Amino acid sequence: MENSVDFERLLEEKIEKTEACINKYLPREEGPAKKLAQAMGYAMQAGGKRLRPLILGESYALFGGRGRIAEPFMAALEMIHTHSLIHDDLPALDNDDQRRGRKATHVVFGEAMGILSGDALLNYAYEVALHSFDLAEGSGEVSRVVLSLQILAAKTGLYGMLGGQSVDVDCAGRAADKEMLEEIYLKKTAALLEAAFMIGAVLAGATAAQIQGMEQAGRKFGLAFQIQDDILDVTGSEEELGKPLHSDEKNGKTTYVTIYGIEEAKTQAEKLSREAVELLEGMGQGDGFLPQLVIWLLTRKK
Amino acid sequence: MENSVDFERLLEEKIEKTEACINKYLPREEGPAKKLAQAMGYAMQAGGKRLRPLILGESYALFGGRGRIAEPFMAALEMIHTHSLIHDDLPALDNDDQRRGRKATHVVFGEAMGILSGDALLNYAYEVALHSFDLAEGSGEVSRVVLSLQILAAKTGLYGMLGGQSVDVDCAGRAADKEMLEEIYLKKTAALLEAAFMIGAVLAGATAAQIQGMEQAGRKFGLAFQIQDDILDVTGSEEELGKPLHSDEKNGKTTYVTIYGIEEAKTQAEKLSREAVELLEGMGQGDGFLPQLVIWLLTRKK
Repeated sequence: MENSVDFERLLEEKIEKTEACINKYLPREEGPAKKLAQAMGYAMQAGGKRLRPLILGESYALFGGRGRIAEPFMAALEMIHTHSLIHDDLPALDNDDQRRGRKATHVVFGEAMGILSGDALLNYAYEVALHSFDLAEGSGEVSRVVLSLQILAAKTGLYGMLGGQSVDVDCAGRAADKEMLEEIYLKKTAALLEAAFMIGAVLAGATAAQIQGMEQAGRKFGLAFQIQDDILDVTGSEEELGKPLHSDEKNGKTTYVTIYGIEEAKTQAEKLSREAVELLEGMGQGDGFLPQLVIWLLTRKK
Repeated sequence: MENSVDFERLLEEKIEKTEACINKYLPREEGPAKKLAQAMGYAMQAGGKRLRPLILGESYALFGGRGRIAEPFMAALEMIHTHSLIHDDLPALDNDDQRRGRKATHVVFGEAMGILSGDALLNYAYEVALHSFDLAEGSGEVSRVVLSLQILAAKTGLYGMLGGQSVDVDCAGRAADKEMLEEIYLKKTAALLEAAFMIGAVLAGATAAQIQGMEQAGRKFGLAFQIQDDILDVTGSEEELGKPLHSDEKNGKTTYVTIYGIEEAKTQAEKLSREAVELLEGMGQGDGFLPQLVIWLLTRKK
């Protein structure tokens, strides 16, 4: 790609395509459980960069995938991510009334419906991902779908995102140490990103070594992405971020910045980012979009 | 079976075996997310008749199933049921401090961990059910596992249990009419029971017509089971039930008894029960345990 304007135009296009793919798999807002479907839809339409499905689709392309089999997994991954945002915002957890400049789901639909819509999105993710079996041709593709489902479930659950979330809840109110903070970041943020990098590769027929490489790339990228978030909370501009600055400090939160200081946090994020890019550049036959996306995301100002 | 004493002894044995199967698939209470695993385990160890996995296993046997492939689904179904109980008890939903004579999960572990442990059990159900692929031999069994997963997800989600739960929440505080009440019972209670009857049959290789028959049986049984609950709340003895009587009346809840009166409710439950038994007796090559279980459950006093 020539320059960053071209890259950003291409990114915009890809995000739009990802949106369209997600919308195709959303439930209709009708029938007896209409209100639940509305709450699910409201949460899903909050926008954002659709990072996880975007990465999943790009990872699929990187390993030569050209079919539609990754689409249900793209939508499913965004549903699981959204499930976690709805439940994070609940009064018993982060108690956030706002999400991306709109009222949180439980504020609009009530707390009970907030809980149920999170549950229903998590479950719907599996309903949607299971559609991939209908697109699979031959037993080779069937086993790729099976492995993808196993990765999706493992990275979401007790040993992945939800486990990380529980460690975060468990140590709320007391200072996390280095190890605990890394555990939270690796699980709460990186696990679903690992799933995105891995599942695209699996569905395109990557080798076991390549899939492991993609897991490493996702892990490094996820950690760098979260450290970047900590840095922006201190150094960003409120206007660019679209959210109040210094929220971590106000909430007395331990972050990479409070533990390591701003310079060391930057050094670590850059190192992890460079390693993730190197891993990606060593694999597949892509057009270079995925490593460029990683660099772009890790030099973002918002 | 000779008489009800023999039946109850056999039932006791089968419940014990089901317990052992469930315990085998529970996560270890160790590692960084130990507390989350403990909350999941606490909720799962609340006991009860393990009705859904028991029925799934018996349905598998009814159609000649003799392997271990149904076991992960048995454990998964109980995890999904338990997930729904944890979330039902939360302050924003039914606000119950007690469950089967013990403190509710959110009372012991806190509300945030209550929400997360429900989420994690729902997700873990899929992690566990996906193990069935490792037990599947040949592409025939693989497609049975795929169909079983699709049924499990559909009966749990927006168009099943969670949808019914949302209708219940949605009409809380105002009187439900007949149609709405049936919708709630069919989804909130019957849907997971339909899954139990169907998945056993699917995994044992039943025909499409048989699977449909099992869905009908589950639907009729589920509805009768819920009506029976309404009746016992009025006519049962507190000692036998182990819970306070007339709770529906106190909570101003619409039930089959408040809409149809006690006699008509009994007539409907008996009719549905008879129809479920007839459907079951017309199928498979079983030892008659499953229809007998249905009769026993629908003449229960607790």
